[in-house]
Amino acid sequence: MNFKVPRGTQDILPAESWKWQRVEAIIREVCDMYRYKEIRTPIFEQTELFQRTVGDTTDIVTKEMYTFKDRGDRSMTLRPEGTAPVVRSYVENKMFGYPDQPVKLYYQGPMFRYERQQAGRYRQFVQFGVEAIGSADPAIDAEVISLAMEMYKRVGLKDVKLVLNSLGDKESRTAHREALVAHFTPKIDELCSDCQSRLAKNPLRILDCKVDREHPLMATAPSLTDYLNEESATYFEQVKRYLGAIGIEYELDPNLVRGLDYYNHTAFEIMSTADGFGAITTLCGGGRYNGVAEEIGGPPSPGVGYAMSIERLLLAMEAEGKSFTEDAQLDVYVVTLEKAAHEKGFALLQQLRNAGIRADMDYLDRKMKGQMKSADRFNAKAVIVIGEDEVNNGVVQVKNMADGTQEKITDATVIDTLLEKLR
Amino acid sequence: MNFKVPRGTQDILPAESWKWQRVEAIIREVCDMYRYKEIRTPIFEQTELFQRTVGDTTDIVTKEMYTFKDRGDRSMTLRPEGTAPVVRSYVENKMFGYPDQPVKLYYQGPMFRYERQQAGRYRQFVQFGVEAIGSADPAIDAEVISLAMEMYKRVGLKDVKLVLNSLGDKESRTAHREALVAHFTPKIDELCSDCQSRLAKNPLRILDCKVDREHPLMATAPSLTDYLNEESATYFEQVKRYLGAIGIEYELDPNLVRGLDYYNHTAFEIMSTADGFGAITTLCGGGRYNGVAEEIGGPPSPGVGYAMSIERLLLAMEAEGKSFTEDAQLDVYVVTLEKAAHEKGFALLQQLRNAGIRADMDYLDRKMKGQMKSADRFNAKAVIVIGEDEVNNGVVQVKNMADGTQEKITDATVIDTLLEKLR
Repeated sequence: MNFKVPRGTQDILPAESWKWQRVEAIIREVCDMYRYKEIRTPIFEQTELFQRTVGDTTDIVTKEMYTFKDRGDRSMTLRPEGTAPVVRSYVENKMFGYPDQPVKLYYQGPMFRYERQQAGRYRQFVQFGVEAIGSADPAIDAEVISLAMEMYKRVGLKDVKLVLNSLGDKESRTAHREALVAHFTPKIDELCSDCQSRLAKNPLRILDCKVDREHPLMATAPSLTDYLNEESATYFEQVKRYLGAIGIEYELDPNLVRGLDYYNHTAFEIMSTADGFGAITTLCGGGRYNGVAEEIGGPPSPGVGYAMSIERLLLAMEAEGKSFTEDAQLDVYVVTLEKAAHEKGFALLQQLRNAGIRADMDYLDRKMKGQMKSADRFNAKAVIVIGEDEVNNGVVQVKNMADGTQEKITDATVIDTLLEKLR
Repeated sequence: MNFKVPRGTQDILPAESWKWQRVEAIIREVCDMYRYKEIRTPIFEQTELFQRTVGDTTDIVTKEMYTFKDRGDRSMTLRPEGTAPVVRSYVENKMFGYPDQPVKLYYQGPMFRYERQQAGRYRQFVQFGVEAIGSADPAIDAEVISLAMEMYKRVGLKDVKLVLNSLGDKESRTAHREALVAHFTPKIDELCSDCQSRLAKNPLRILDCKVDREHPLMATAPSLTDYLNEESATYFEQVKRYLGAIGIEYELDPNLVRGLDYYNHTAFEIMSTADGFGAITTLCGGGRYNGVAEEIGGPPSPGVGYAMSIERLLLAMEAEGKSFTEDAQLDVYVVTLEKAAHEKGFALLQQLRNAGIRADMDYLDRKMKGQMKSADRFNAKAVIVIGEDEVNNGVVQVKNMADGTQEKITDATVIDTLLEKLR
């Protein structure tokens, strides 16, 4: 029987995993500069958490969740996104009582959505996200956006643009909702059945429909921007002003609504504008989500955050021809020529590693030639050769792979000699 | 409605997450010395993969798996362990064809077992594991064990012991199996119903029973050691010899069988011997698993590896009073006293971070006193104060928090001045 990686998921093999490690190192560095601290929530949560927050008319909740009953007959769902779990943790752990608000958190790890397969979309994908919970200062919206832009800058991306919108507060949204209903109702028969049910439940979701995207009613739909009340408009102005103060450019898109129900006020996406990046250009999406903490039983705790896909960040780097430099060179490869030499070589190998030297040896009982080939493939800086003579005489041969020189060194001095040479 | 973290899982909050990051950094360093490369497999796999390899009479497979049908009606299981997925990937990606064997891989990430809750046991837990696949050299068994011991050494643990056994090859196991059946059959009624069904299917699992652990039949059961054929005995001698060559001490335990079916030859555990560590003392378990690759459709690819729990590593550190030192000091906290100052402060904050300075500011519109308290809690090295005067005069006040001195600095030189001071 043959086994395959589950459809829509992938193995990240050593040829790629070092790039992921590099991205993670950058995440830690950048978050450290901004004083965001890591939080790790479980891979699954109670299903209702996502129904309540992401919204039970969204595609994510209705079509894409991996939901199952655990052995205690509780409905659990592999997390489709990271904000709801982080807010759940903020409320459950009473972080609203921490003296320093907002609490600034970041996470990174796998998320799960059962979507149709297409290039750059996986059913298990990795998101890096940040959440600042406990402040309604528009400057923190700008900070969060700046942290996202900084990530792309650090990996060398140039072809990215920030797209911005305001979804307003509850009052603004209610006014807009009524306008949407008035707009779509006369011709609702022309839209898909999902949109027909969205009309009553959540008409804003119609604008996010993948099926009716090109329908003429979409272009003429009332824009949220025209329904922002004064408070919402002022808030949005301030966000734009803070972005201006730190030199971050943006494009306004009144149709940017995001596929999750919890957003209000600021909504944003960062897209790749690189040629040939593919149909899905969104690299990162986020916004403000005041009200989510209350929705799940906490005190009012205004929040703002985003999530970015690491898969797409790496794809965007490829599209722009940017890459990291791998540092995979081995320091020392130990070649052993007989059984007794193998044991001596193995003991030496251990000493090398204990001394902080990257070292390896042969475990296949191969002849010298095969072992030297491995040393070459590992790009070893030095090779140590041990045969019967060397065992008997308490020495080793050290070959410098850069210039081909070779010298005999006593066992007692080999570690110090190599540390010196490798410095 | 209130939401809680799912039972048996935990949130890792910022007060703890930095320790996990530290452990992960050590994992990368050590694996780098030993030339093990990271692999990341999906969170779930086809259920049958684990039934085939871990074994369908084991507790893991019969009682502890999180199994569910995906939306395509395929049976999937949240991975209960990491070896089967890594071997699946080795076979699927034809790594047996790589020129350098063994392929040396490591992984770290969440695993899932629906176990009864007890101290130090979680239903979602994190394992770091390594797998060396493609060599039957007993030296690689010793290398793998040495890599595990090195991890504990690097985090400062002293109270650990290595326990070793050999499960022998197939022939040895068959001979032992027959002896076990002969031993248990006459009194099988005295054992639990699970053990009764194990007798026919897999009598070795009886030795691993949690219910009948204290039954007198256990102590007198035939030991595998007495049934090792010559080849297996020689292999085991060599493993011990290589361990001796690198100064790793061990205890022999002929009853060490591990709770997974795939092991043969070398089996080992590393236990904490620290006082008050708790009932479950195993920190790490592993062994050789020749035959698993064939079982899932690959060519013969002998393997050896282990998995260690990060939760228990951290608990063992606690039990031994070992800890990491946190480096969470903020460089600069920006205090702003009016609205205009807030905007100037925000722009400066961005410049500080761009210059690689860890910086933060107030987002709650608090008075000076509250902001200074935050600066203290963050242990900031310097505080920048900006009020109306400073905005009007193009300067900032910089306070050195170590000696309390304060000076006025022009906007144009503030970044360079701070970089100088913080050096």
